[in-house]
Amino acid sequence: MSLESNIKASIRDVPDFPKPGIMFKDITPIFENQVLCNEITEGFIKAISVKPNAIVGIESRGFLFGILLANKLNVPFILVRKAGKLPYKTISHEYALEYGTSKIEMHTDSIKKGWNVLIHDDLLATGGTADAAAHLVEQQGAKVSGFSFVVELGFLNGKQKLNIHSNNITCLAQY
Amino acid sequence: MSLESNIKASIRDVPDFPKPGIMFKDITPIFENQVLCNEITEGFIKAISVKPNAIVGIESRGFLFGILLANKLNVPFILVRKAGKLPYKTISHEYALEYGTSKIEMHTDSIKKGWNVLIHDDLLATGGTADAAAHLVEQQGAKVSGFSFVVELGFLNGKQKLNIHSNNITCLAQY
Repeated sequence: MSLESNIKASIRDVPDFPKPGIMFKDITPIFENQVLCNEITEGFIKAISVKPNAIVGIESRGFLFGILLANKLNVPFILVRKAGKLPYKTISHEYALEYGTSKIEMHTDSIKKGWNVLIHDDLLATGGTADAAAHLVEQQGAKVSGFSFVVELGFLNGKQKLNIHSNNITCLAQY
Repeated sequence: MSLESNIKASIRDVPDFPKPGIMFKDITPIFENQVLCNEITEGFIKAISVKPNAIVGIESRGFLFGILLANKLNVPFILVRKAGKLPYKTISHEYALEYGTSKIEMHTDSIKKGWNVLIHDDLLATGGTADAAAHLVEQQGAKVSGFSFVVELGFLNGKQKLNIHSNNITCLAQY
C-alpha cells in the first residue's frame, strides 16, 4: 500500500464534529502506530526542497509531527500558540475565521534572520492559520521554505493562500 | 554538567505569568535544542520500571516529549485533551482547580484492559491534571505504571497526590 492509503486507513471519519454537517477527519489513531508515524515523518523529509533551519509547529496537533520532524532533522522546534499561551515576549498575527477572528503568537527570540523555516500542522483546510504562521516567520526576517501537512481538504483551496509564501507544500493524504 | 543542570540552564523564568506573583518556568527553549530533547527522552526511559504498553500525553506541552517517548519506545501515543476537543467517543474526568473545576477527556478505544500506561506532562505542580489522567486510565481497566515530568515544583506536593496510582514518578528538574 502507498503511504497515502496507509494514512487514510488510519483516519477516522467523525460526523457532525465540531458542529452539525461537518465530517471531521480524526487523525488520532495515527499516533497509536509509531511505524506509520515514522513513515509520515520520512515522507515529509523526502519532500523538503531546502533543509530548514527550524520547524514551526502549530498548536496543538501540529506539535506532534512538528517535534518528530525537528528531532529527526536535529533542528530547533518552535511553538506557535493561540494568543496568551506563550509566557515570554511574543509577536502575534490576527486572521479571519468564518465568523470572527483568531490570533496566534510566537516567541520573539526563536527565529533568526535569514533562516529557512518549515511550517507544520496536521491539517490544511482554508490555510488561514498556516498563512498567519508564515507572516510571523517573515516578519522576523526569515523565509518560509515550505509547509507540511498530514491531510489536505483540497476543496477549500488552502494551497492557493499559502503559495505566496512558498510553493513547497506537502500534503500526504488528500480529500 | 548533569542532565538536571542542563535542563535548568534552558528553562527561562518569566515573572508574573499567567498572573501577578507567579514565576513561570518556561520550557520552550528546551525544544530549540534537539540534543537536549534526546537526553531528556533517554532520561525518562532510564527511569522506567516496567516498559509501558502506551504513553499518555496531556495537552498541549505534554504532547511534545509524550510523542518523542512513544516514538522511541515504539508504543502507541494517546492524547488527553481538554473537554470538547477530541472528536470520537470519550470518557472524561472532572477535577478541582484553585478556583472552579476543569475536565479532561480521552478516546474510549485507545487503551486496552490490562495495559501498563505511562503518563507524561511537562510540569508537575499540584498533580491535579495528571491525577485526572490516571483516573481515566484506571477506569478503562489499565494500570498506571509511572509518571514522567520534565519539571517538578516540589513545594506543591504533587507527588503525594500521584502516589496512589504509581510510585514510579520521574521529575528530571526540581524546584
